[in-house]
Amino acid sequence: MELIRPTYLINPVVCKANIRSMADKASRAGVVFRPHFKTHQSRQIGRWFRDAGVSRITVSSLLMAAYFQKDGWDDITVAFPVNLQEMSLINRLAGIIRLGLLVEDGESVAHLGRELVNPVDVYLKIDSGYHRTGLEKQDLPEIGKIIETIHANPMTLFKGLITHAGHTYQASGPDEIRQIADSSMMIMREIRNEIRDIAPQCILSVGDTPSCSLLDHFTGMDEIRPGNFVFYDLMQRELGSCSMDQIAGVMVCPVVAVHPRRNQAVIYGGAVHFSKERILVGGRPVYGQMVFLNSGSWIIPADKAYLVSLSQEHGILEAPDTIINTLKPGKSIGIIPVHACLTANLMKGYYLATDEIVDHCQGS
Amino acid sequence: MELIRPTYLINPVVCKANIRSMADKASRAGVVFRPHFKTHQSRQIGRWFRDAGVSRITVSSLLMAAYFQKDGWDDITVAFPVNLQEMSLINRLAGIIRLGLLVEDGESVAHLGRELVNPVDVYLKIDSGYHRTGLEKQDLPEIGKIIETIHANPMTLFKGLITHAGHTYQASGPDEIRQIADSSMMIMREIRNEIRDIAPQCILSVGDTPSCSLLDHFTGMDEIRPGNFVFYDLMQRELGSCSMDQIAGVMVCPVVAVHPRRNQAVIYGGAVHFSKERILVGGRPVYGQMVFLNSGSWIIPADKAYLVSLSQEHGILEAPDTIINTLKPGKSIGIIPVHACLTANLMKGYYLATDEIVDHCQGS
Repeated sequence: MELIRPTYLINPVVCKANIRSMADKASRAGVVFRPHFKTHQSRQIGRWFRDAGVSRITVSSLLMAAYFQKDGWDDITVAFPVNLQEMSLINRLAGIIRLGLLVEDGESVAHLGRELVNPVDVYLKIDSGYHRTGLEKQDLPEIGKIIETIHANPMTLFKGLITHAGHTYQASGPDEIRQIADSSMMIMREIRNEIRDIAPQCILSVGDTPSCSLLDHFTGMDEIRPGNFVFYDLMQRELGSCSMDQIAGVMVCPVVAVHPRRNQAVIYGGAVHFSKERILVGGRPVYGQMVFLNSGSWIIPADKAYLVSLSQEHGILEAPDTIINTLKPGKSIGIIPVHACLTANLMKGYYLATDEIVDHCQGS
Repeated sequence: MELIRPTYLINPVVCKANIRSMADKASRAGVVFRPHFKTHQSRQIGRWFRDAGVSRITVSSLLMAAYFQKDGWDDITVAFPVNLQEMSLINRLAGIIRLGLLVEDGESVAHLGRELVNPVDVYLKIDSGYHRTGLEKQDLPEIGKIIETIHANPMTLFKGLITHAGHTYQASGPDEIRQIADSSMMIMREIRNEIRDIAPQCILSVGDTPSCSLLDHFTGMDEIRPGNFVFYDLMQRELGSCSMDQIAGVMVCPVVAVHPRRNQAVIYGGAVHFSKERILVGGRPVYGQMVFLNSGSWIIPADKAYLVSLSQEHGILEAPDTIINTLKPGKSIGIIPVHACLTANLMKGYYLATDEIVDHCQGS
């Protein structure tokens, strides 16, 4: 099979090893492994998780839940504040699978109570320091009231507290990631302790990829929900969550122009393929790192070459002489994407080194 | 029709007025209007251009050319350095339409000469200051050689010089945009003048949206190719290319959480809907500006509220009290996107105020 346009090439051996490794870690740590499927959004890759013993999953939209339900997944948490405008899909799914929803205000719970025709698991979203969504420890009176509202309706089954310590992504490295994870888990335990009278059965669910990659113990937690680790990417590598050889996918991109005078090449591969997620390398924004392609896989060159600019379909690669002199229009190179989830979402499918195309959910 | 998930709402009246206004300007200026269709990528919206008298178009990939060919467009320039790995599609299209390709090196021209089975129009890509792709004025000897190579093969018909003054996007405002446009057009005229002996028939093609929006005259140019103006967006507004009421589309996004204490709300609308394109407002990155929805259209509030952060599906809106107190989970708001092209590419379809869904090319 020829890859003549930007294509997300996945090495199934590396990908399956990432899945197995996280499943084993969860098992050793005694926590439920409920992986987030928003990274791969793929039936086929979902089946690799099933092969590793996974039966409960996390997604980030109801459309994604519906997509995986069709492939036989029957215990799905939608880790996103419930969108009350989608009651019709919620009711349909809740009638056929075990559906978990996130809430963070009493009015939404009351609305759910009135509109649900099938019971759902309800998680209270806790803000453990990321300050994106959720209730904080100082909101204990409100937390109590919301749990009472959940209890009061037979369609809303209180399941536990859930958090996403997304601020690990702003950490300077592994030590700070561990500190953030510890502090986040402590907040979760403290809140559970405070509500034990009204919620004696209360699971604690955590799980961003940096924390789950670096920690071995999740003291007091019941469940982890990492997602990105399935592929890993340049951002995770920079954070210290993974090594270069744990990265399971690169974008195959045709070279369309070479400008040796300014040590640049232009690739077919732009913002509509990679997204515009960026990291800073030496203070400069970069959008990906170059690798050489090698019969269905890739080789990381000693000299580093980065994607330094993206337009809609153009990518500008900046490379030292040793690399630029090997590039030629009509040939392709590989690029490790900065953010696997967004790249996968744009590409809507994968090419496996085994010469097979696998699917990606079309909605978002 | 209910919009219960992130949806790109287009006001057809504003959109058609933008098309008509640019077509009229081109006509008054005596240049061919060859609009770039990479912004809307939509058959239906393409037909609105046809209604305005347009018969020649620009696209940014061969997949997009194939998509529009199917809807009857038969004179298409692919404004992207030719991808030599797509010869099979090039040959198929060149057999049924007038196809224009961009080159910037002799080897690629020679390759085309060997592989083409049908003639194509060939444009030489000129770098008029943006430094993304193309040959510079100092490359005149090479430009001459490439034109000779083009002339030497009956399948490659030299058409002219083409440039994209994309550096207008980094301009501080309208005055600098005009300066960049003038300088870019001067370089184009100078190169044409230098090659007149070997290329007496040589058209000059320019056209980024900021320049085309602000200029009334395109001295010496033969063709303009703006694209973004069909919708405009927050970036164009900040550059001064358009007014707020020329923006033809907003994203409809459900509100899923409100945090009055920190003047924030969370919307269903993230990086997989908007892209992560950003502009700086008061030194801070923003990803969109809020509007109120109003029966198929929108109203711009006096107080400004911006999307200040995006995760995969979450958007964080920061809003003053006057706005935050009106928001409620279960209702939707509108967001003017920073970059219409990337948002449209992610959404893969539009909702018209006339209660109609229109298509967007699926490939990229």
